[in-house]
Amino acid sequence: MKKIRAAVVGYGNIGRAALEALQEAPDFEVAGIVRRNPADREGIAADIEVVSDIAQLRDVDVAILAGPTRHIEEQAKAILAKGINTVDSFDIHSQIPALRSELDAVAKAHEAVSVISSGWDPGSDSVVRCLMEAIAPKGITYTNFGPGRSMGHTVAVKAIEGVKDALSMTIPLGTGIHRRMVYIELLPGYELAEVAAAIKADPYFASDETHVMAVESVDQLNDVGHGVNMVRKGVSGSTHNQLLEFDMKINNPALTGQVLVCVARAAMRQLPGCYTMIEIPVVDLLPGDRADWVKKLV
Amino acid sequence: MKKIRAAVVGYGNIGRAALEALQEAPDFEVAGIVRRNPADREGIAADIEVVSDIAQLRDVDVAILAGPTRHIEEQAKAILAKGINTVDSFDIHSQIPALRSELDAVAKAHEAVSVISSGWDPGSDSVVRCLMEAIAPKGITYTNFGPGRSMGHTVAVKAIEGVKDALSMTIPLGTGIHRRMVYIELLPGYELAEVAAAIKADPYFASDETHVMAVESVDQLNDVGHGVNMVRKGVSGSTHNQLLEFDMKINNPALTGQVLVCVARAAMRQLPGCYTMIEIPVVDLLPGDRADWVKKLV
Repeated sequence: MKKIRAAVVGYGNIGRAALEALQEAPDFEVAGIVRRNPADREGIAADIEVVSDIAQLRDVDVAILAGPTRHIEEQAKAILAKGINTVDSFDIHSQIPALRSELDAVAKAHEAVSVISSGWDPGSDSVVRCLMEAIAPKGITYTNFGPGRSMGHTVAVKAIEGVKDALSMTIPLGTGIHRRMVYIELLPGYELAEVAAAIKADPYFASDETHVMAVESVDQLNDVGHGVNMVRKGVSGSTHNQLLEFDMKINNPALTGQVLVCVARAAMRQLPGCYTMIEIPVVDLLPGDRADWVKKLV
Repeated sequence: MKKIRAAVVGYGNIGRAALEALQEAPDFEVAGIVRRNPADREGIAADIEVVSDIAQLRDVDVAILAGPTRHIEEQAKAILAKGINTVDSFDIHSQIPALRSELDAVAKAHEAVSVISSGWDPGSDSVVRCLMEAIAPKGITYTNFGPGRSMGHTVAVKAIEGVKDALSMTIPLGTGIHRRMVYIELLPGYELAEVAAAIKADPYFASDETHVMAVESVDQLNDVGHGVNMVRKGVSGSTHNQLLEFDMKINNPALTGQVLVCVARAAMRQLPGCYTMIEIPVVDLLPGDRADWVKKLV
């Protein structure tokens, strides 16, 4: 059977994890890695091509966009315009509808498929949220994140004056309320009390319970574990108190990389256009023959 | 907007729950109820048509087959042949592939859609199992049922000599192992010890830990609550120990009825053929516009 040729575009944490997932997948082969500096091959096996432009790779079926969210739209448009499918884990929830609509037009014009926002949230969590909403149509779903590092909050802390390095941990308190545990290395001449006040006043933190602590080494606290707990209490038909719950404790980049590879596979099976994960049959995420999975999993 | 006209075929626990879910759904109207004795209108509102043959109802878009699993194939074939979509909660896991293949041919020949095995297991659980398998492709999933009544086991006990009435409860012990708690009313002249031995020797019970107790009234124990806990510990890419869990505590017929209504809606949105729930985008289970759900849930 012909394997799907996938390129990994961007080679940070997520790119590395996507490459590992591709290498474990029975139905993929690695077309190559696209990164700004292709001379940097540290930790990359000799048989993998590294280039600066996807046009330098041959026969790419699908590009896994593993770089920062803010680059996704431009990258995806350029790659879709070559007739190559794209997948990404674009994670700014409020901008997903606009991105979907933009990429849908480009994908259709070039008979390609784009699957966006395919990490774990947005991504696999979205599928579960959607299923829960369907089977108990009235009620409330709470998505509780963590414990785990928040990239957005960590970046916000690093931008504050007096902060040398930082880590912001998200701690779930239930009902979608989160505590922020912020660990910082101070620059010389700054006082913890003042810097902590500035952090707590930042819009990222102003409405959450926030604790700021000075530490000697932020790097020493580094752990890519994360988690989510989604609960819905709702009504099926006219029957109340239906209790639904989904829980994960996971290595964050590993899960994101794996989901990207699953949607790269699914992208090969959709009609031209742009999709989110809730718009794709879950069986399309799996390798091989649909009928075998119906037999095994239904 | 034109509403979807759904008929409920079979009016036991599941049929009643499906009717309730239809009445709560914003995009459906009840075309009528099909049952063996249409004169029996107990508990049915005066404005709902009750007939013995679906041909007596006008403009049916989709039939919700809520009768026993053993009647599904014949009923579905006859109704699909009229160009009417069908949905069911056929629950004999091993026979699902054959049913899917049989109904696929009939559905395609008559440009109709059938969605089979759409309760909670098989059904919504299958969607979660499939998603878990995709995002952690190596590992083990355990499906733990209960506590709740097992229909199959209860029927098996009732068939044993000396049993007047019975209830078999499924108790989850973890890793997919279940205890059977069997409550029976004895017929006069029978001894508990003998009847219990016969139950434990039955193939339904022989390989499980089984406890048999005599009670005065089985009806007094009746409770349609049920539950499931699915856990998967697996590998994403090359990263082990990814921990995934899904848990429900639910009213069993209410959830089944609601899922049937969701798939009745989804059936209207698929190309002709037969599907299981893992083959349908989860967003198709929800009413209204796809883009609104992308905005709300992704």
